[in-house]
Amino acid sequence: MSAAALIEALKARGWMMATAESCTGGLIAAAVTDVAGSSAVFDRGFITYSNEAKMHMVGVSQGLLISHGAVSEPVARAMAAGALARSDAQIAVSVTGIAGPGGSDHKPEGRVCFGLATAQGVTAQTVEFGPLGRAEVRQATVDHALSILLRASTY
Amino acid sequence: MSAAALIEALKARGWMMATAESCTGGLIAAAVTDVAGSSAVFDRGFITYSNEAKMHMVGVSQGLLISHGAVSEPVARAMAAGALARSDAQIAVSVTGIAGPGGSDHKPEGRVCFGLATAQGVTAQTVEFGPLGRAEVRQATVDHALSILLRASTY
Repeated sequence: MSAAALIEALKARGWMMATAESCTGGLIAAAVTDVAGSSAVFDRGFITYSNEAKMHMVGVSQGLLISHGAVSEPVARAMAAGALARSDAQIAVSVTGIAGPGGSDHKPEGRVCFGLATAQGVTAQTVEFGPLGRAEVRQATVDHALSILLRASTY
Repeated sequence: MSAAALIEALKARGWMMATAESCTGGLIAAAVTDVAGSSAVFDRGFITYSNEAKMHMVGVSQGLLISHGAVSEPVARAMAAGALARSDAQIAVSVTGIAGPGGSDHKPEGRVCFGLATAQGVTAQTVEFGPLGRAEVRQATVDHALSILLRASTY
């Protein structure tokens, strides 16, 4: 899907967005800000690559990271909620996953957990993209994150 | 230049890196984390797209933003210094520029200010890429930022 459609939907709603990205490393924010005029809807992004960054930038607790691992729905929820709370945005998306190559921590390559936070609450979902390769998993993750944001911005 | 060379240089030095990006919106971090194994050297990234994000995420003062504008060497320096101070990294790069289309705030399209912070100090430089178009200015900015990081990591 196109970032331009998301930007129009956010503008129509009067919303700003924020991101908290782990495995995509900034690609979601880059896709949105690739569109001229995105500054009207894009507030900020947190690239929380290390566990320390997840804790300090968006307030994920060490307990969650230890008990569930970084690639988990509880951590995705905490990342999205933290990004929303620590920004001027009305909607925040988060991603944490195994881009590969290879799985890790007993989790398979291609598993990505997504979080979404708005004033209505925080949700999470897991998608198994499978061993597509690092670049393909990352791109599929960007596309899915933009879709989640668009759906939540237009209902 | 390639992000892989930068990652090897950082590994050899035992350094982690951080980014503070405005006009590139996450593309520098995305380029580094495109390489498998980048988690050994990439700590976190701040996508400080709005002025509020520049202030709250990396501690740029409102006075600097008002007196020099967001696209300026003093702001680039403050972004890099803030990213270094608010991370576990030993080197941080920052970019703030006019990706276009069109200039703004009496500054021309294609002007990008870069900041670099290490324990040795903080420096800044301005590059006029010219009106190449938004995607091209952003890509040229990524390449230059990676070059700055590589040079500072290998001296």
